[in-house]
Amino acid sequence: MKIYFSGSIRGGQQDTDLYAELIQELKQYGTVLTEHIGSKTIDTTMTDQEIHDRDVMWVKESDVVIAEVTVPSLGVGYEIGRAIDMKKPIICLYRTINGKSTSAMIRGCSELQCFEYSNISKAKEILKTQLKTK
Amino acid sequence: MKIYFSGSIRGGQQDTDLYAELIQELKQYGTVLTEHIGSKTIDTTMTDQEIHDRDVMWVKESDVVIAEVTVPSLGVGYEIGRAIDMKKPIICLYRTINGKSTSAMIRGCSELQCFEYSNISKAKEILKTQLKTK
Repeated sequence: MKIYFSGSIRGGQQDTDLYAELIQELKQYGTVLTEHIGSKTIDTTMTDQEIHDRDVMWVKESDVVIAEVTVPSLGVGYEIGRAIDMKKPIICLYRTINGKSTSAMIRGCSELQCFEYSNISKAKEILKTQLKTK
Repeated sequence: MKIYFSGSIRGGQQDTDLYAELIQELKQYGTVLTEHIGSKTIDTTMTDQEIHDRDVMWVKESDVVIAEVTVPSLGVGYEIGRAIDMKKPIICLYRTINGKSTSAMIRGCSELQCFEYSNISKAKEILKTQLKTK
């Protein structure tokens, strides 16, 4: 199974360690195409168009998209929008921080599955339940 | 001409006045479907799914999508992703703040037109040039 993991890059560096842990967990279910999301180093050798085209190709190739949607991100929202039109199964995970939840556009989209979680163990449980049937 | 204006709602309240001014400008070119984006009051009477479904319907109905992409936003990214698959003309406007530009996924997408601007007058000039041919 090919997994596209999506998380905020420029806006969400505070969550990089969490992304890395989720990616590590996801690797037991398949190949994570976007392992770099869990790295604190941003690759600056690629142009924006190269990054865009590679990422859209990876979404196309993937069997499932897992998005961490706690931190607002244009890129993550964009990838979810594209993935919906590609009819990919999409699982969104988010935490509520200071009473702020994730976007209404994400929570209100019936074409994806959106789960709130409080800590990494809960996130792993959600992934287990969701991915064991895929 | 029906115009879908997209801007950050929950994350971008600091830009509401700017959105309101852009919407006011856009009204001379056509009908702005999303006039509420320029309001400081968030409508809480609708469910997330109602908001999502209405907004996607408006993107479908629109002749052009104008997105202000300075503030990271899942909803704005999502709408751009959906609009691309609907083959809508998309114009993105952004400011560079504290050396931070907009997302690589937006700037690197060849299916939309992305413009940096420094103040509202420049934004109006860009809209004039882009919209007079539509």
